[in-house]
Amino acid sequence: MAQHQLTCQTTGPGLYEITNDVAAWLPRRDGLLTLLIRHTSASLLIQENADPEVQTDLTAFLRRLVPPSDHPSMTYLTHTYEGPDDMPGHIKAALLPVNLQIPVCAGRMNLGTWQGIYVVEHRDHPHTRSVALHFQPDPD
Amino acid sequence: MAQHQLTCQTTGPGLYEITNDVAAWLPRRDGLLTLLIRHTSASLLIQENADPEVQTDLTAFLRRLVPPSDHPSMTYLTHTYEGPDDMPGHIKAALLPVNLQIPVCAGRMNLGTWQGIYVVEHRDHPHTRSVALHFQPDPD
Amino acid sequence: MAQHQLTCQTTGPGLYEITNDVAAWLPRRDGLLTLLIRHTSASLLIQENADPEVQTDLTAFLRRLVPPSDHPSMTYLTHTYEGPDDMPGHIKAALLPVNLQIPVCAGRMNLGTWQGIYVVEHRDHPHTRSVALHFQPDPD
Repeated sequence: MAQHQLTCQTTGPGLYEITNDVAAWLPRRDGLLTLLIRHTSASLLIQENADPEVQTDLTAFLRRLVPPSDHPSMTYLTHTYEGPDDMPGHIKAALLPVNLQIPVCAGRMNLGTWQGIYVVEHRDHPHTRSVALHFQPDPD
Repeated sequence: MAQHQLTCQTTGPGLYEITNDVAAWLPRRDGLLTLLIRHTSASLLIQENADPEVQTDLTAFLRRLVPPSDHPSMTYLTHTYEGPDDMPGHIKAALLPVNLQIPVCAGRMNLGTWQGIYVVEHRDHPHTRSVALHFQPDPD
Repeated sequence: MAQHQLTCQTTGPGLYEITNDVAAWLPRRDGLLTLLIRHTSASLLIQENADPEVQTDLTAFLRRLVPPSDHPSMTYLTHTYEGPDDMPGHIKAALLPVNLQIPVCAGRMNLGTWQGIYVVEHRDHPHTRSVALHFQPDPD
């Protein structure tokens, strides 16, 4: 099977690691893995998986870079009827990756020592996020 | 044909949807689609295609995040001789995607319900933007 | 050979062009090139390679967007024990690309006229950065 769909349950803004779920799906071959998140207010990210403070700091930075739309600095936003976290979610989804590609050797992703794969949730309420996976084997 | 070039005519900062143009080119097969924008002051983006306010809000945010180089806050910029919209265009092109990958099932892109594909123009004057398309079929 | 590892020696924040190193590795075939940087405080970027001021301006913008963690505006950061340039490096690595894909025609990357490929260093001290390369030939 070359394609798969993975779901990730989120509970508010932050990073949710999916490295092991992705690794478990991979065939034991060489090839190229592609991930695409099928939403416009969540992202994919490769980030450090050693210290969880990196993740909370990143979430805090994003909240300061793109405050909720009811914040005094964001009164120019017009798309507000889906809640104060909605349009900022779309903006963060524009700034962070919507897809990732990772070379695979014998079923093992060629990531750096500290790199993990994350779904980044930008909305306040719980969501079920869908990630499309695609694996293309190298020719023999 | 595995490769193609698509052009998009722009008329100032904003999002220009190319979803249908891309879809029309795809063969009716499973595989992986890659898009690359061949410019350094325009971007590619997957974003919500339901409410056009999302697009104008995003453009407004980017203009505030990276003001024109004749704005008082941007006096540290040195690459200014191509106009006040040029260096901010390069910066926005660094922050937004230069390429996208989308898994394809039987000629249909595996996008989310509300996801459309856009060229994002960062320059003030009209431009003809070139997008390289590449399709790799899954092995049988 | 479908996969390769390229190293890039950096000496502080800025852009380091690797276009020629990447081009030299490519086979003279049609296909798709993928690059992945195997670090969480450095990035890959396609940017203008004509005027070096573009690169210094971009680095200056990123430093203002994400100041060092000992800057008064960044006191909310908690991941600070690896130095004031560490957490900002992770944040910049979230905002800039971790991977790139480039269609290849007869061994030649289908880049725009002014596009070059760069490693972007976010840390202050010298680092050896590793970039995974992957080439998948188009089927005949």
